[in-house]
Amino acid sequence: MNLFGKHFLNTEDWSNDQLIYVIQLAAEMKKNSFDPRWAHLLKQKNFLMFFYNSSLRTHMSFETAMTQLGGNAQYRTPQMGWIKKLANESGENLKDAIKVMSRYVDAIGVRVTLDYLSHYGEGEKILKEYQRWSSVPIINMADDTYHPCQALADIMGWAEWLELGDMLQRLNNLKGKKLLLSWGSSGLARPWSAVQSHLLTASRFGMNITLARPEGYDLDSKIYDLVKTHCKNNGTFFNITDQHTDAFDRADVVYVRNWISPEAYQNGVFQKEQEIEKALRHREWITTKEKMARTNNAVFANPMPVDRGYEVTDEVVDGDRCAIYDVAENRLHVQKAILALTMSNKDIII
Amino acid sequence: MNLFGKHFLNTEDWSNDQLIYVIQLAAEMKKNSFDPRWAHLLKQKNFLMFFYNSSLRTHMSFETAMTQLGGNAQYRTPQMGWIKKLANESGENLKDAIKVMSRYVDAIGVRVTLDYLSHYGEGEKILKEYQRWSSVPIINMADDTYHPCQALADIMGWAEWLELGDMLQRLNNLKGKKLLLSWGSSGLARPWSAVQSHLLTASRFGMNITLARPEGYDLDSKIYDLVKTHCKNNGTFFNITDQHTDAFDRADVVYVRNWISPEAYQNGVFQKEQEIEKALRHREWITTKEKMARTNNAVFANPMPVDRGYEVTDEVVDGDRCAIYDVAENRLHVQKAILALTMSNKDIII
Amino acid sequence: MNLFGKHFLNTEDWSNDQLIYVIQLAAEMKKNSFDPRWAHLLKQKNFLMFFYNSSLRTHMSFETAMTQLGGNAQYRTPQMGWIKKLANESGENLKDAIKVMSRYVDAIGVRVTLDYLSHYGEGEKILKEYQRWSSVPIINMADDTYHPCQALADIMGWAEWLELGDMLQRLNNLKGKKLLLSWGSSGLARPWSAVQSHLLTASRFGMNITLARPEGYDLDSKIYDLVKTHCKNNGTFFNITDQHTDAFDRADVVYVRNWISPEAYQNGVFQKEQEIEKALRHREWITTKEKMARTNNAVFANPMPVDRGYEVTDEVVDGDRCAIYDVAENRLHVQKAILALTMSNKDIII
Repeated sequence: MNLFGKHFLNTEDWSNDQLIYVIQLAAEMKKNSFDPRWAHLLKQKNFLMFFYNSSLRTHMSFETAMTQLGGNAQYRTPQMGWIKKLANESGENLKDAIKVMSRYVDAIGVRVTLDYLSHYGEGEKILKEYQRWSSVPIINMADDTYHPCQALADIMGWAEWLELGDMLQRLNNLKGKKLLLSWGSSGLARPWSAVQSHLLTASRFGMNITLARPEGYDLDSKIYDLVKTHCKNNGTFFNITDQHTDAFDRADVVYVRNWISPEAYQNGVFQKEQEIEKALRHREWITTKEKMARTNNAVFANPMPVDRGYEVTDEVVDGDRCAIYDVAENRLHVQKAILALTMSNKDIII
Repeated sequence: MNLFGKHFLNTEDWSNDQLIYVIQLAAEMKKNSFDPRWAHLLKQKNFLMFFYNSSLRTHMSFETAMTQLGGNAQYRTPQMGWIKKLANESGENLKDAIKVMSRYVDAIGVRVTLDYLSHYGEGEKILKEYQRWSSVPIINMADDTYHPCQALADIMGWAEWLELGDMLQRLNNLKGKKLLLSWGSSGLARPWSAVQSHLLTASRFGMNITLARPEGYDLDSKIYDLVKTHCKNNGTFFNITDQHTDAFDRADVVYVRNWISPEAYQNGVFQKEQEIEKALRHREWITTKEKMARTNNAVFANPMPVDRGYEVTDEVVDGDRCAIYDVAENRLHVQKAILALTMSNKDIII
Repeated sequence: MNLFGKHFLNTEDWSNDQLIYVIQLAAEMKKNSFDPRWAHLLKQKNFLMFFYNSSLRTHMSFETAMTQLGGNAQYRTPQMGWIKKLANESGENLKDAIKVMSRYVDAIGVRVTLDYLSHYGEGEKILKEYQRWSSVPIINMADDTYHPCQALADIMGWAEWLELGDMLQRLNNLKGKKLLLSWGSSGLARPWSAVQSHLLTASRFGMNITLARPEGYDLDSKIYDLVKTHCKNNGTFFNITDQHTDAFDRADVVYVRNWISPEAYQNGVFQKEQEIEKALRHREWITTKEKMARTNNAVFANPMPVDRGYEVTDEVVDGDRCAIYDVAENRLHVQKAILALTMSNKDIII
């Protein structure tokens, strides 16, 4: 499975076999983080983490992954440089910055979303600009449209919690299981990227999907179209509903996340306060023990930060079907596998 | 001496033998920073440094310690994440953040003090919250109550400056020596943590202690009680005085440090300007050459940043009994020993 | 060539042979970044990068250099510590900070320029203060007067683009070539350091130099005097002109850079807005394809960030004689050579 030199902007960029291989390798790495098979794969290599928006989990999991592979992760923000936003002002254009940055490091991760942007889709566009000019692989650390590493960490975690056998068997057994992907009320105003990548990945891995959200909280229609195609290919269903409570029926995975509305950008500015106010009008969109009781003993998932008391009650988060810490840990293993595969041309035996 | 997996929030958490062993190992490490006996102990391991308050010395000494042990130190601040301060607002609660962070790294250091807090004691409480939820060792990089690494670096430095023989002999010979721990005037408004840890450590290592401070600058009474007990056990004295000059008589170590008054927090807010104004009313609380002349040729100590012209005169800092740079260097060696012992389960031969 | 323990504040500090050796080693390192001859030279050593002013290129190139040499680069800013600017205020004086920092690391790089300073020359003075108190080598990462690493990266790049043979032959062949070093209009208000180091280095390496700038944009006269001496020693010319277009005639290297005027500091404050306004009155000082056509097929150089549409047109930057990305990459190799030579006492075979 040769992924050396490849970009990873979106799970759709890679084949099912490639995604499965990444998760299989991640599962092996999880068994022994310091195994000599991967401890030297990226010796003295550098991974640049370019954070337009700050992060705790992504930052830590990528930095630890690089350290465990023998390399180094560099942390940088736009405030540290001269990159300009408007074409006609003085400053460095993004093309020049990318061309130079890719001379210094062996791969580049980018996070860009929410208030850094002037409209939905600009984040994805920036990532494509990185891909265009970089001489080294670009890894999406979450833009406004996709969060592929989160999606793989979740699929891996759901497979661990729900199924038995080796990782390949576990992933195969996810087929036909029901994912409830539900909007949650919150004051955090989160982007669409994680949920959209989950829809894409879960549908490709053969899961049935119910998407529950209040009216006015639809996601990108191009994602819906792709998910419909994947479900059709797999003979599975993709329902969209605004009935929060009923949606829990017979779910195997309940994934809850707040996200912003399609009106979040106005006049080129992210309307954070307005989005929060609107989201807090739907406090009934909270996942409770009672709602979870309608499921097929589902595991509870959330990409964190989990907003207790808003997205979900303490009872559920602290309960025995909560997979959020394991999924968060999987970020490390999945990203470590991706970095190893894209940045090293050495064979890895798993 | 098995300290693997142990937390280090306070010198009181560890036995005398354990503290002595840490300092002995630090002294060995100081002889050869890159000795193969410790160069690979933490290979590819990660230490998270979580700084609620910024720092220069602590940051550098911990990062260098990790590098020299073969590992990596990650720098993070609360601004990089979503951790909330109030329970009912949206955001990530500390428990969830700690549970996830401890999945990514092999130990966590925390600094939290002064203006980040709403009252004295909250820093210690936050550290205990870390200890409660973390699956890896928590190291106190200075809270509002304790600064155990500084205390060990000082004891080691005083032993080096005052005594002869190997480190065990030097530490034993500190018994019965007199420490003057004196408040100093300054515009820096420093916390109680370092001086309180010094009182605890010096009293346990058998030193006589005179604490000199102006009226209205007493420290935590629970610390006083512990120090009295330690001194009673060791047959040593613990005096508290507001006579600055007389306190220097026959001192073997003069440790000077500004600290805030018990009124520093009001209505949940750290009153920095008010504390500075109050401290600057006591400009006579400065350590001078003349006062040092009353000592038993004492070494001068201060945890730095030393506030020249306020806490102490240039003459003393630039004089030949000033141990502050050596003590500062010891931070590296002591912390390196602590990290090696708590994070590695390999035997270390010293 | 023993440079172990040496400071590098200015190219003038080192002999021609020493500078040539650095570039020769950089050229070897460029052939194989991970060659075992240098992969372990700075194993577990620490390089402190102290940035009074932020940076993207310098930060990345030094951090990557340290990683590739087996060591670690620490990033720090004055905001992380207590360093005071005025002698009589509370805080840590620079001497104490330097003495301590040099106990923790194996070399220190400093960047200090522009708005951090109160007058031209203060940056160089700060660097000398570091040199005075540090027990480890000080490396200039750009002050207000010199930028020696940039100058060596450029000379190396020009030699690569213009000449053939090994690096020693290429450098020798630069003798007699014509460098046009031209001011450029821009809204970025850049310091004198890079251009002044280029004048010094190019004149020492035997190049003829035309310096083109509008009236009122002269550089430091002590630099002019040194350049005149170097040119006299080498039998080359050093012209200064305000005729932008004519200056391109028969140039072999066209190096373009905006810089501030001698009036940039007033009443101890950097007048950024005023400087930008003044510079934008000279929009005709832009390097175009037509001007480049008057040269001897010159390579185009700029230390980046390049200000497209102001300093130079897109046509030139995107053209086939643009060396800026290669020169930027050379920052990594040159600095890696400098770090290896000053921080390691092991022999390096090239």
